[in-house]
Amino acid sequence: MELTRKETSLLRALATRAGRKKSGCCRCEGLRAVRELFANHPEKIQFAVVTPEMQSAVDFPEELLRIVPEKLFEEFSGTVNSQGIIAVAGIPDAPAGEIAGEFVLAVDQLGDPGNFGTIARSLRAAGQKELWYTKGSVDPWGDKAIRSGMGVQFSMNLRRFDSLADMAEFGKKHGIKNVFIADPHQGENCFTCDSLFDRAMIVIGGEPNGVRGSYPEARRVIIPMPGNYESINAAQAATVLIFESVRRKVM
Amino acid sequence: MELTRKETSLLRALATRAGRKKSGCCRCEGLRAVRELFANHPEKIQFAVVTPEMQSAVDFPEELLRIVPEKLFEEFSGTVNSQGIIAVAGIPDAPAGEIAGEFVLAVDQLGDPGNFGTIARSLRAAGQKELWYTKGSVDPWGDKAIRSGMGVQFSMNLRRFDSLADMAEFGKKHGIKNVFIADPHQGENCFTCDSLFDRAMIVIGGEPNGVRGSYPEARRVIIPMPGNYESINAAQAATVLIFESVRRKVM
Repeated sequence: MELTRKETSLLRALATRAGRKKSGCCRCEGLRAVRELFANHPEKIQFAVVTPEMQSAVDFPEELLRIVPEKLFEEFSGTVNSQGIIAVAGIPDAPAGEIAGEFVLAVDQLGDPGNFGTIARSLRAAGQKELWYTKGSVDPWGDKAIRSGMGVQFSMNLRRFDSLADMAEFGKKHGIKNVFIADPHQGENCFTCDSLFDRAMIVIGGEPNGVRGSYPEARRVIIPMPGNYESINAAQAATVLIFESVRRKVM
Repeated sequence: MELTRKETSLLRALATRAGRKKSGCCRCEGLRAVRELFANHPEKIQFAVVTPEMQSAVDFPEELLRIVPEKLFEEFSGTVNSQGIIAVAGIPDAPAGEIAGEFVLAVDQLGDPGNFGTIARSLRAAGQKELWYTKGSVDPWGDKAIRSGMGVQFSMNLRRFDSLADMAEFGKKHGIKNVFIADPHQGENCFTCDSLFDRAMIVIGGEPNGVRGSYPEARRVIIPMPGNYESINAAQAATVLIFESVRRKVM
């Protein structure tokens, strides 16, 4: 089918947060991201723009496919080396109350979309589902966050809160036993802290400020750095902690 | 002192790999990166362009400082939210033969400068120094690699090789006992493999292809992923392995 004018303007509008908010949709670019979307929320897909050579790469119902010339496609694409596929989909509803998996990974005012997506991917790879974020964080449904996350957003429980305190309170109400704040300077050793992944919430801050919000009952956890170095990137810190949970399971 | 015309053209030329090769210099942008440069190779600094408000932030000898108006600075800066400081420095010489630290982290055809810099930072934080790379990898002295690495390049032993086989041979000659290739599909469990950090070389590939080079004696190592997910980002994989070495030390 042909791309309509309305669809064209929707595609363009979704480049901005305002456009996503207004329409309740997002753009999902790249083959792996679209596959993740299709596997988890096929009902949310409105249409997909593809270049002629990509049309057979996904098993989409034909009525959802809009084949457009490469040149027009490039106008929509947010990346230089595009894979030739962008799906437009409704943003999934906020998940119900129950918390899935063993622990919650939370980010506080994480501003970088690449970091958000990368953390989502690490969490997904570790078999966890809960990724929470506070106001002031990047929009998880923005182009770059979806590309970096390769669409794992569509299979996770993303929850947004106004503040760290709100987030912690919600967690406590739903079975979270401990709130841990990752701290570059002091805290319990992440490799030996027994309760770190036992129905816990682990909060990572955005660089360069670390976690800005506070919660009185929170415990501090530190990743030891023998190199005597200030700090690592937020996504790296999250990944170290996430895979420490994997290690404890498989070792 | 005033920025000369020659310095202006050098600054511009250093945005490209060809310009860096010709002059043997690189640009180092951002406060932390410049501090890392200053702490490790003060003798390599040729000059630093700073905005008026940044001139007191570093303890540079005055004759090296070129204070320029914000507007002109922005022309040189590779980033939108610049910190107002860029140093131009000679690229440090290749390190001597001896291998420092406990293990070598090597990347094979890693094309993303952000990933390169991030891996360098994780390695530095873990107290290791050897970061090797094969032809086909990004230039570690490019703007973005230095920004992502926050200049830790200046305190590491970076070594470039034509191929994975060359790299492994060099390692073997200099005391490396085992070569491990990180493999997303199969291999020894990274959390239980005893010899992983004992004078070993660990090779990470660029996404999405993983390690392309080969070396007959290489062992394979895998990061377990309970989420049954294809793979994580190259920088995340490297960081998981790097901090597994830290865990074994501090636990």
